[in-house]
Amino acid sequence: MSLFRPEIDRIAGYAPGEQPQEAGWVKLNTNENPYPPSPRVVAAIEQAARGRLNVYPDPLATQLRRKAAEAYGVGPEWILPANGSDECLTILLRSFVGPGELVAYPYPSYVLYETLAEIQGGSHARLPLNADWSWDHARCEPIVRRSKLALVPNPNSPSGNRWSDDEVAALVPPHGVLVIDEAYAEFGDEAAGPRLLHSALGGRFVVTRTLSKSYSLAGVRMGFALAHPDLIAGMRKVKDSYNCDTLSIAAALAALDDPAWMLQNREKIRATRARLSQSLRDLGFHVVDSRANFVWATRPQGGHRGIYEALKARKILVRYMRYPDVANAPGGAIDGLRITVGADAEIDALLAALREIG
Amino acid sequence: MSLFRPEIDRIAGYAPGEQPQEAGWVKLNTNENPYPPSPRVVAAIEQAARGRLNVYPDPLATQLRRKAAEAYGVGPEWILPANGSDECLTILLRSFVGPGELVAYPYPSYVLYETLAEIQGGSHARLPLNADWSWDHARCEPIVRRSKLALVPNPNSPSGNRWSDDEVAALVPPHGVLVIDEAYAEFGDEAAGPRLLHSALGGRFVVTRTLSKSYSLAGVRMGFALAHPDLIAGMRKVKDSYNCDTLSIAAALAALDDPAWMLQNREKIRATRARLSQSLRDLGFHVVDSRANFVWATRPQGGHRGIYEALKARKILVRYMRYPDVANAPGGAIDGLRITVGADAEIDALLAALREIG
Repeated sequence: MSLFRPEIDRIAGYAPGEQPQEAGWVKLNTNENPYPPSPRVVAAIEQAARGRLNVYPDPLATQLRRKAAEAYGVGPEWILPANGSDECLTILLRSFVGPGELVAYPYPSYVLYETLAEIQGGSHARLPLNADWSWDHARCEPIVRRSKLALVPNPNSPSGNRWSDDEVAALVPPHGVLVIDEAYAEFGDEAAGPRLLHSALGGRFVVTRTLSKSYSLAGVRMGFALAHPDLIAGMRKVKDSYNCDTLSIAAALAALDDPAWMLQNREKIRATRARLSQSLRDLGFHVVDSRANFVWATRPQGGHRGIYEALKARKILVRYMRYPDVANAPGGAIDGLRITVGADAEIDALLAALREIG
Repeated sequence: MSLFRPEIDRIAGYAPGEQPQEAGWVKLNTNENPYPPSPRVVAAIEQAARGRLNVYPDPLATQLRRKAAEAYGVGPEWILPANGSDECLTILLRSFVGPGELVAYPYPSYVLYETLAEIQGGSHARLPLNADWSWDHARCEPIVRRSKLALVPNPNSPSGNRWSDDEVAALVPPHGVLVIDEAYAEFGDEAAGPRLLHSALGGRFVVTRTLSKSYSLAGVRMGFALAHPDLIAGMRKVKDSYNCDTLSIAAALAALDDPAWMLQNREKIRATRARLSQSLRDLGFHVVDSRANFVWATRPQGGHRGIYEALKARKILVRYMRYPDVANAPGGAIDGLRITVGADAEIDALLAALREIG
């Protein structure tokens, strides 16, 4: 007899991404920023480490909410800081999804949403996308109508495309909440979130942001949910009292205090992204126009898994992804390579290897 | 129409403890360790801050699990590190408690368990204690029998007493799991957890530990669930992928690497606890023999809230606690003062103030 809830027994265990611990790898598989965080972040952590670690952090992270409010263009009471935007997603599912309630999300995108729905005892449905990553609105609409929570990464992963505000706003469930997961927002030309939050439907949106990607702080775990204060107040009841620690709060404050550093890295990444995209196209790949810090590359003749393996043999890690059950795809599945936009030398190594592999 | 789950609407919002931000307070209300963490912790954080914060932490915290395994006397596969032992509790509730299932816990103790049960849509029941904080086994037994999860802080709060292994082992639900919340274990004479884990019933226990109290790291958020590997494997499916960050992992590794520092502070706290307990008794208080870093003080004539307020007026914070619905208590409720064992100078200030207040 299992002691676990049946939902927990049913889901698969967590499979950590490939994180080789030894040196010498070109790591383009988990969308980390290749550049270090601002030196102000390092100084702030060092100062906090010499401070009072024996006392609890501020449970409401008041100072950080004020700083994030400036950065994201909302009031402090519109912000819930969390232990990475992963924790924002967990809090959202626990806040809004009861047993049997429906979670909808575009497919292919971030399949973690399914696991989170299953842990809650909820059900889930996939919102179909067209082959060019646009919405199949006619088929989405009846699913959205039944949903308690719809989750849309924008820009999307693995594709890297970004949908317009109007397209996303059409996905608000009439009896639920739409979450716009903006993990990669800073790499696009504009971020949708704050503007939609101030729209007539603003009380039905939650936008999630993270410092992991653009601010080079994947190791620190700091994400934010942005939403109407009524939604934030309810979500706050669900979070652990001290979900953000003293060091992460200090790091996040310093990072948000130095947007110029982040923007400089962002520009480098965008320039490298353009070069990577063009070079991949020259090599015969189809590459979606990316608004994120990765690109989605496919070849008409396929063979993506073989390329992934040949790259890995050369100590270059990219992400091979395969999505079964895609209705409009030839063979019922799509697969391809999701490649993080690394530093220029890393991308040079990748391109040289791809030319060799042929 | 609320968009939240009805369970979330029903629970009260989180009321942060009193955490005055300005200087000059003697803070004896949240059981923090008055002494700083090991200098090795500070050095390890500084080194990690200058390391690779742009990449994700190890999702399984492999190195830390190895170190914690040595410290707690179990194998690494018996350990789940988490964002404070609060997160361990949240993961436990999400792993084992489905809608309508029963959570039992001794009363008076840590009422957070009720909130966590309510968030899960579970129910909860209080295991009655006698006036001397011993178990009313006859009345507990039928409740335990119906429980999916029983949670027992040992040492208990607010009382500070510690129950024997045998008493605690009697509370394993026949169809569920017993969680022994050992947040304060290091301040007692022996810790029950590891020994019970290796007993015949070991597969039915989860022990939680924290570095917040004994290791002076409340600001860093690091807790551990210790349990049979089958239980840990299931709980791991529920946790967020990167629930522990790079800096916390580095801090925890360094802290566990310097047990002598912790033990030295523990001895100081135990000596101060003895002096505080005796002095309070001399002042006419009843004080439970404490195995934790706080004491529970009551006076036959009551007036505890007034003492709390008079102390607060002198910038000394202790915790006034009141528990309604205690069957065996005169008036149906008990109240008292939970006083953290601070540094000697802080305790001197407290005792002087109490003598003044009279």
